[in-house]
Amino acid sequence: MIQDFQHVCIACRDLDRSIRFYETLGLQVIEPIRELDEDRLAQAMQLPRGHLRVLHMAPRDATSSIFIDLVQWLDPSPTGEAYDALNHVGINRLAFRVSDIDATVEALQGRGIPFLTEKPQSFGPIRTIVTTDPDGVFIQLLEWL
Amino acid sequence: MIQDFQHVCIACRDLDRSIRFYETLGLQVIEPIRELDEDRLAQAMQLPRGHLRVLHMAPRDATSSIFIDLVQWLDPSPTGEAYDALNHVGINRLAFRVSDIDATVEALQGRGIPFLTEKPQSFGPIRTIVTTDPDGVFIQLLEWL
Repeated sequence: MIQDFQHVCIACRDLDRSIRFYETLGLQVIEPIRELDEDRLAQAMQLPRGHLRVLHMAPRDATSSIFIDLVQWLDPSPTGEAYDALNHVGINRLAFRVSDIDATVEALQGRGIPFLTEKPQSFGPIRTIVTTDPDGVFIQLLEWL
Repeated sequence: MIQDFQHVCIACRDLDRSIRFYETLGLQVIEPIRELDEDRLAQAMQLPRGHLRVLHMAPRDATSSIFIDLVQWLDPSPTGEAYDALNHVGINRLAFRVSDIDATVEALQGRGIPFLTEKPQSFGPIRTIVTTDPDGVFIQLLEWL
């Protein structure tokens, strides 16, 4: 029986570059880098090999126990590009709840994080803004007023 | 400041078909279908319009408060295809913690849910199997032994 969400996997081209981005955003490494080379993993994922570097990240002080499974494939190599638009079919956005979104965004802009709009947009009880990680993955920040 | 994960957005081509899949998997609708047509949403997402149908789903009895934001775009239309392989760059997999994965998979196979492998694979303390939703989105079930 399904109990709960466990993690969201983001496959990146450069693990160290992605770690820096998510750390700047306010996440921390909760399980350090491991290098796996597992036939059973390859089999479960229908890939010819299962050789990858992986670590887990989550927001500091998060209570949900969910984490990002941040993966850099070594063999096979990472392929393709992240979805280029938010109406693209697939898992196209990961959203984080933030406090004081305006101050958060201003601080993140000061640390070089790019956003699709200059300021958060309001609709209904939500204030929200979207950033992209170094591979172009859409990450949404959201304050529920 | 980032507090926690809030949701994972999955964009689909047919909302009713996707709802049936995720209900079969063991999730339930926690917020019913709404139709949105919001200029601010379009602006936040850098799209020409923000017209979509959306609902929220989560595992029954989940404690994390995370949900799937299941979206069917109406204008602009949904585009593209979900990532075709698990080494594709991007958010390419959403993983759920399950109890008794063998019984769960057997029950789900009986309800017509397809899996990449016939049985869960074991590596380290993990038993896992991957299914695909009606748009080909990779959904992983995982038991931590």
